[in-house]
Amino acid sequence: MPAPLINCLATTDPLADVFSDGSVVRAMLAFEAALVRAEAKVGVIPQAAADAIETAAKERDFDLAGLAHGGLRAGTIAIPLVKRLTEKVHSKDSHASRFVHWGATSQDVIDTALVLLLKRAHSLISSDLVRLEAALHQLSERHKDTLMLGRTLLQPAPPVTFGLKAAGWLGSIRRSRTRLDRAFQETAVLQFGGASGTLAALGDKGIAVGSALAGELGLAYPDAPWHTHHDRLATYVTTCAVLTGSLGKMARDISLMTQTEVAEIAEPGGEGRGGSSTMPNKQNPIASVMTLAAAHRVPGLIATFLFSMVQEHERAVGGWQAEWPAVAGVVEATGLAAASMAEAAAGFHVSEERMRQNIDATNGVVFAERAAMLLVPTLGRHAAHELVQKASLRSIKEKRRFSEVLAEMTEVARVLDKQTLLAMEDPAEYLGVAEQFRIRLVSGSERRDSGDKKE
Amino acid sequence: MPAPLINCLATTDPLADVFSDGSVVRAMLAFEAALVRAEAKVGVIPQAAADAIETAAKERDFDLAGLAHGGLRAGTIAIPLVKRLTEKVHSKDSHASRFVHWGATSQDVIDTALVLLLKRAHSLISSDLVRLEAALHQLSERHKDTLMLGRTLLQPAPPVTFGLKAAGWLGSIRRSRTRLDRAFQETAVLQFGGASGTLAALGDKGIAVGSALAGELGLAYPDAPWHTHHDRLATYVTTCAVLTGSLGKMARDISLMTQTEVAEIAEPGGEGRGGSSTMPNKQNPIASVMTLAAAHRVPGLIATFLFSMVQEHERAVGGWQAEWPAVAGVVEATGLAAASMAEAAAGFHVSEERMRQNIDATNGVVFAERAAMLLVPTLGRHAAHELVQKASLRSIKEKRRFSEVLAEMTEVARVLDKQTLLAMEDPAEYLGVAEQFRIRLVSGSERRDSGDKKE
Amino acid sequence: MPAPLINCLATTDPLADVFSDGSVVRAMLAFEAALVRAEAKVGVIPQAAADAIETAAKERDFDLAGLAHGGLRAGTIAIPLVKRLTEKVHSKDSHASRFVHWGATSQDVIDTALVLLLKRAHSLISSDLVRLEAALHQLSERHKDTLMLGRTLLQPAPPVTFGLKAAGWLGSIRRSRTRLDRAFQETAVLQFGGASGTLAALGDKGIAVGSALAGELGLAYPDAPWHTHHDRLATYVTTCAVLTGSLGKMARDISLMTQTEVAEIAEPGGEGRGGSSTMPNKQNPIASVMTLAAAHRVPGLIATFLFSMVQEHERAVGGWQAEWPAVAGVVEATGLAAASMAEAAAGFHVSEERMRQNIDATNGVVFAERAAMLLVPTLGRHAAHELVQKASLRSIKEKRRFSEVLAEMTEVARVLDKQTLLAMEDPAEYLGVAEQFRIRLVSGSERRDSGDKKE
Amino acid sequence: MPAPLINCLATTDPLADVFSDGSVVRAMLAFEAALVRAEAKVGVIPQAAADAIETAAKERDFDLAGLAHGGLRAGTIAIPLVKRLTEKVHSKDSHASRFVHWGATSQDVIDTALVLLLKRAHSLISSDLVRLEAALHQLSERHKDTLMLGRTLLQPAPPVTFGLKAAGWLGSIRRSRTRLDRAFQETAVLQFGGASGTLAALGDKGIAVGSALAGELGLAYPDAPWHTHHDRLATYVTTCAVLTGSLGKMARDISLMTQTEVAEIAEPGGEGRGGSSTMPNKQNPIASVMTLAAAHRVPGLIATFLFSMVQEHERAVGGWQAEWPAVAGVVEATGLAAASMAEAAAGFHVSEERMRQNIDATNGVVFAERAAMLLVPTLGRHAAHELVQKASLRSIKEKRRFSEVLAEMTEVARVLDKQTLLAMEDPAEYLGVAEQFRIRLVSGSERRDSGDKKE
Repeated sequence: MPAPLINCLATTDPLADVFSDGSVVRAMLAFEAALVRAEAKVGVIPQAAADAIETAAKERDFDLAGLAHGGLRAGTIAIPLVKRLTEKVHSKDSHASRFVHWGATSQDVIDTALVLLLKRAHSLISSDLVRLEAALHQLSERHKDTLMLGRTLLQPAPPVTFGLKAAGWLGSIRRSRTRLDRAFQETAVLQFGGASGTLAALGDKGIAVGSALAGELGLAYPDAPWHTHHDRLATYVTTCAVLTGSLGKMARDISLMTQTEVAEIAEPGGEGRGGSSTMPNKQNPIASVMTLAAAHRVPGLIATFLFSMVQEHERAVGGWQAEWPAVAGVVEATGLAAASMAEAAAGFHVSEERMRQNIDATNGVVFAERAAMLLVPTLGRHAAHELVQKASLRSIKEKRRFSEVLAEMTEVARVLDKQTLLAMEDPAEYLGVAEQFRIRLVSGSERRDSGDKKE
Repeated sequence: MPAPLINCLATTDPLADVFSDGSVVRAMLAFEAALVRAEAKVGVIPQAAADAIETAAKERDFDLAGLAHGGLRAGTIAIPLVKRLTEKVHSKDSHASRFVHWGATSQDVIDTALVLLLKRAHSLISSDLVRLEAALHQLSERHKDTLMLGRTLLQPAPPVTFGLKAAGWLGSIRRSRTRLDRAFQETAVLQFGGASGTLAALGDKGIAVGSALAGELGLAYPDAPWHTHHDRLATYVTTCAVLTGSLGKMARDISLMTQTEVAEIAEPGGEGRGGSSTMPNKQNPIASVMTLAAAHRVPGLIATFLFSMVQEHERAVGGWQAEWPAVAGVVEATGLAAASMAEAAAGFHVSEERMRQNIDATNGVVFAERAAMLLVPTLGRHAAHELVQKASLRSIKEKRRFSEVLAEMTEVARVLDKQTLLAMEDPAEYLGVAEQFRIRLVSGSERRDSGDKKE
Repeated sequence: MPAPLINCLATTDPLADVFSDGSVVRAMLAFEAALVRAEAKVGVIPQAAADAIETAAKERDFDLAGLAHGGLRAGTIAIPLVKRLTEKVHSKDSHASRFVHWGATSQDVIDTALVLLLKRAHSLISSDLVRLEAALHQLSERHKDTLMLGRTLLQPAPPVTFGLKAAGWLGSIRRSRTRLDRAFQETAVLQFGGASGTLAALGDKGIAVGSALAGELGLAYPDAPWHTHHDRLATYVTTCAVLTGSLGKMARDISLMTQTEVAEIAEPGGEGRGGSSTMPNKQNPIASVMTLAAAHRVPGLIATFLFSMVQEHERAVGGWQAEWPAVAGVVEATGLAAASMAEAAAGFHVSEERMRQNIDATNGVVFAERAAMLLVPTLGRHAAHELVQKASLRSIKEKRRFSEVLAEMTEVARVLDKQTLLAMEDPAEYLGVAEQFRIRLVSGSERRDSGDKKE
Repeated sequence: MPAPLINCLATTDPLADVFSDGSVVRAMLAFEAALVRAEAKVGVIPQAAADAIETAAKERDFDLAGLAHGGLRAGTIAIPLVKRLTEKVHSKDSHASRFVHWGATSQDVIDTALVLLLKRAHSLISSDLVRLEAALHQLSERHKDTLMLGRTLLQPAPPVTFGLKAAGWLGSIRRSRTRLDRAFQETAVLQFGGASGTLAALGDKGIAVGSALAGELGLAYPDAPWHTHHDRLATYVTTCAVLTGSLGKMARDISLMTQTEVAEIAEPGGEGRGGSSTMPNKQNPIASVMTLAAAHRVPGLIATFLFSMVQEHERAVGGWQAEWPAVAGVVEATGLAAASMAEAAAGFHVSEERMRQNIDATNGVVFAERAAMLLVPTLGRHAAHELVQKASLRSIKEKRRFSEVLAEMTEVARVLDKQTLLAMEDPAEYLGVAEQFRIRLVSGSERRDSGDKKE
């Protein structure tokens, strides 16, 4: 099912499907079916009733009309859905219908259905991340010697390699995937507490039913119901948000590099991508645009989710009711960003030539730090910085090589010979430990060396 | 068209319809049709071409399949839509198809379509606000003498009237409606600038076409295109947000008053409202819950919109692409809050009896301020406060009348006789200028007295 | 008083001073002094007591130690402040001390003090906006014929003038100043309601005292107290946020134009501006950076404020307590953005040469829309777009003039002669109604034409 | 150092001190001192120079005047600070001054100083959390048999124990502490990359210096510099936010239970806590209020931080410049919430009597679910729910025992005898597996059973 048009720049087709009406209802009915199976297994309700309910819950022609409307009036779609399901069962087996939703409350089906949807979504996002990481790894290796400008505050700085830049993207994205997998493990748990979270309606069978139910749904069974303690969900969505921030950083870098004036990279084109309705020349960086749009959306949705954590007693007044669109929005945006960057990273056109030209076009001014480092030991920090600044400005103004301008300054000439000054402007010689950092990043040394090691 | 289930607690049916696929496409096609009408009028394109395009744009069987998907790949649904429209026209009149979208850019149709949707939404919200204000006015008048506890930090404070409380809600909501109408006037303007905002493709006819187009669509014609200057839209949505904040305050008050332990007010019930899937006794305050859910959602969406205002040059990279769901979300939530409170306010069950009992149950301790005011002139602020505090604590602890406890204290007895102390506990005698404030609020004196006066 | 270091990139010196401890305390004491003056005037307390209190409230050596700590424990700094003031008065005139804070509650002094601080802040922001608008007006006039690239999605688009771009900034900023002045008028009102908002402690004198108090403080007297109805404040801060969004858009444009590869504009330098601790060559666009930082901060603070509007009954539990830092943060950021852009706009170095070169460097591809417009009437929309797209790609790939490539295509040559193709690439001839839009923007025609017209 | 007054309800004294000017400058100077020590150790600079710089960096009389102002103009306080430090060293040893800040860039000192501040803050927060958890554990044990109303949507629901409620708070807070410790481990890493993140100025010695520097500062050495990859910091602050959400939930519950009409719990009083400036009777729940205020502030600050992750190339334009106040704000709020709840939890006054009375006051209606469960097997879901609902409404309306009303209904009497109906209203008999859930929560079984187990 495609996304609603109003939302179509905010998700991918597969994620739009996860949060579509059919998918939402199926997840809720999966809960109701698994519940009665578990209850029959534990001996709380008759097996025949469970079978009848499960059969009804699996029907595809489920009459959805009015569910949304009924949900709004009831304050939850669980109520009209349980009502429909009961009617459906009743029409075939009036006795069995008595056991629909037995011992559960609306929140149980609402929260667990959301977890089931997240399970599908997490697997989609994960596989896009794996693709993306592989593409970035390859990109980094291929460009380990490709020189390009460093840029701080969008102004030229000493050179880096494109391999290092790609490795930086990779590092942050891989860290977030590790976090997201861990958060998912924590989040993929059953919610099942009944009216007040004590499973009172099931007498002393609550935990037995709950464990069986979790097993049926392929979810872990938590220490206790979490109806108004949504910290696990919060951890999942905030981890998505951190990932989207990193994807947004990558997209911002790319969108800047695709500027015609910079022209260091181009996104892959392809059918229907990057055009304009009026400018046939356009090759817009759509993957970056979509990723940045996602990075614009997510922070606000996270604020909503976090606000909504302040939930009253055993069922919130407004808090959880605001959650579904927020969670869906975050996950959809994260998935869109991951899929977009994965598609782009697999097909970037990189211009090593323009990268080199952009360094050269600075006339060597980006080596001002290097010049200062050479002069400071003799002249002191203050004098050296002043000299180098003066030379930089002159080089920019007069469009002459920085080394040439420096060579003309007597204070400089006294300390550095022409040879040294010329060598100073070779970018390949001013990369420090860029390659070592790159290797550490792509090899994931972090996981062995740092704080994660003890886990 | 109903809301998607994932979103069904976040909007009303009529607003879900405004932002439904059919409505979005109709608004975009309305722009395309009006554009060619205007261009024919000004003589930029042939009238026959305009007619053919308008006819195609009015077709109901418009093939929508793939629009969402195409929009995602193109970075805007305007591109696939214009393509479809062109094909449609072409199949009937190949010459006319040349003039589809003539001189416009995607952003023109995207932004103007959004304004057209807001026009429908604004009228829906406004009429709910009018209903709500009328109900609150009536409520305030009816309860101008109904005494109830003031409550600060959820602790008892000197009494107010329920009429004053309702008038306070009314005042803030009416101020926001005035602001929202003004913001709407500002926002209901055409966006039409062509590729770079100069209408270059229309030569010197740009303003003539623009004015005619605005007229066709019933929108004002602004000073200039606003493709990357979305301050008017921002004003509209932030004004919605302020209104929703006020509606949320009202809903919070009501949800607190519906607690069984307080029981001063109940929301009207009705078919399908306020039940539970497992607790047949429940009478949940669904209108307040929905309004509070809206108040949880909006602040985060506003953060998204505001951050999206930082748009690059003549077309943003990520900024506007994040706008549609944010604007729709804010407007839907605002409308849901307004409709919910309007429905509730028209049918509140108010228990004057419980309001009075809740005052009485404090044993007079809420008149501590009054006692202090009586004692300070003689005893000084510090001594008076200490005495009154001691008496309050004893009254609470021993569950005795506050006046009685005070009367036993020699320092008090020296200053105040029993008569005065007893009279002190009559809530009707300690209302200050509550009624005057109430009258000022319901009569809207603000609009005459304050900063708004010149309008 | 300077800003705390942790906050020093988030405000200006004058605004840091407005929200400094001394200023906050003075605003609170100004309320207490004006209160007793008003009460003496109305005859509620003795004039001598008012005099004594006012004298104490004006002392500069006010002992502030522990106020912050006491405020945290009490949940409001009004309580420890009133305590100190009372002690101070008491040490000179024990009788007078009884009338300190007479009839008021903490919230009255807290809210009104905030309004008094906003009054100072608003005047600072306004004067920076006036400077900024004047600079932009001048810039727009000076560059009305300066051609530069349009840029959509950071890709080249048909040309605009720098005068139009500056006028676009001006238009949005001026609209927001108008809104901000209006919001300030609404917000500059007294809060005075006593414990529950009825002024019960003042008997029937509440409104007389309130009116006099408002007059003393130079504030308007509203219809009623607004202790838990903060919609006016909300309007002020959201209007600040919309303004900051527009300033952020201007700063983003500038920061992009200052890239070495673009080099169309430079911010003015000056003592201590734009350097680096290690790169002596740097000329960083600090004003834009600070403005963008402000635009990053404000949306989140607005979310906080809006969420805080949901305030319980007559005094909120958490809501207003979160307000002060949020309001101060928004106003400081807005003022920083306004001051930064005002300073920058007054001293921009604009390179008309580079602007022209950047157009030329596209080899005419930005006129693809123009070419399409010329071809569509003969070839149809689809064929024309395909041809032009092919020519664009070839021009980019082969680094040849677009017109030259087009001229070689037989389908094109049939329709357009060389002369037409060459003329097509003159940017000055493809500006549409840019100058008319510019004039409308700088002359503020909007205010006469649109929804604002009645003001 | 106390908090600024404008901010004093937003932090604790110890955390205000962490982010005070003195503390910020000391952290930055600690970096500069450790840097030169590490460089001397590796042989990059003379030991004597390192000694001289370290001596200067330790001076307490560091002249701070103008740092904030200089920071604003430079876009970072690192620049004026390095300048002052250089002057200071120079006045004693002009040769040594050449090696100040050798090879580092502003961002290195800025980011690492922030990490050092977080180290202090984390330890403060952790110890408050440990105190809080201990208090909640004790509270839960003490009240494992204390019956109280469940409440869903603020309406009465089947009973729970106060021990279970406290265990629920404990569970979510302990999960977040585990997450926060893990996030801290990840975040406590050095930032050191030089101008472009390659440490070019240190030649091939970059990693040796970096490792030594990390060791000097007690931080881990990461795979690579993270100047524009702030995902670790983001994980720390979002984890704080999730914790604050859980603390806010606890505070909301408490504030609701302290309502006079509910009166089930009271916060501990104490000098200066909970009073009013005008109402001597007040016992406000200040700890809950402060915690809720924190929960209002944090979500917006998180939105700011997440937005700010989209950082350009090797140094952001606006992104990181917005970070410091956001990080400080989140950490201060989190610490305030943790400290407030720790103080409160250690001294709650719990009224078991009122808890029981509030159950009784519902006249048994909260056992409607139980009644339905008893009737459904015989009567079917629909008929049973209808009957029970009718009985509930009658019980509420006529203020009679629910069981009594039920007993009068013939359809009910046929199925359930009086004995059963009476027993049905014993709350202790309708607790399901509340105690088992409680035990699982307080014993932290989650850590053994669920997704975290492999760690």
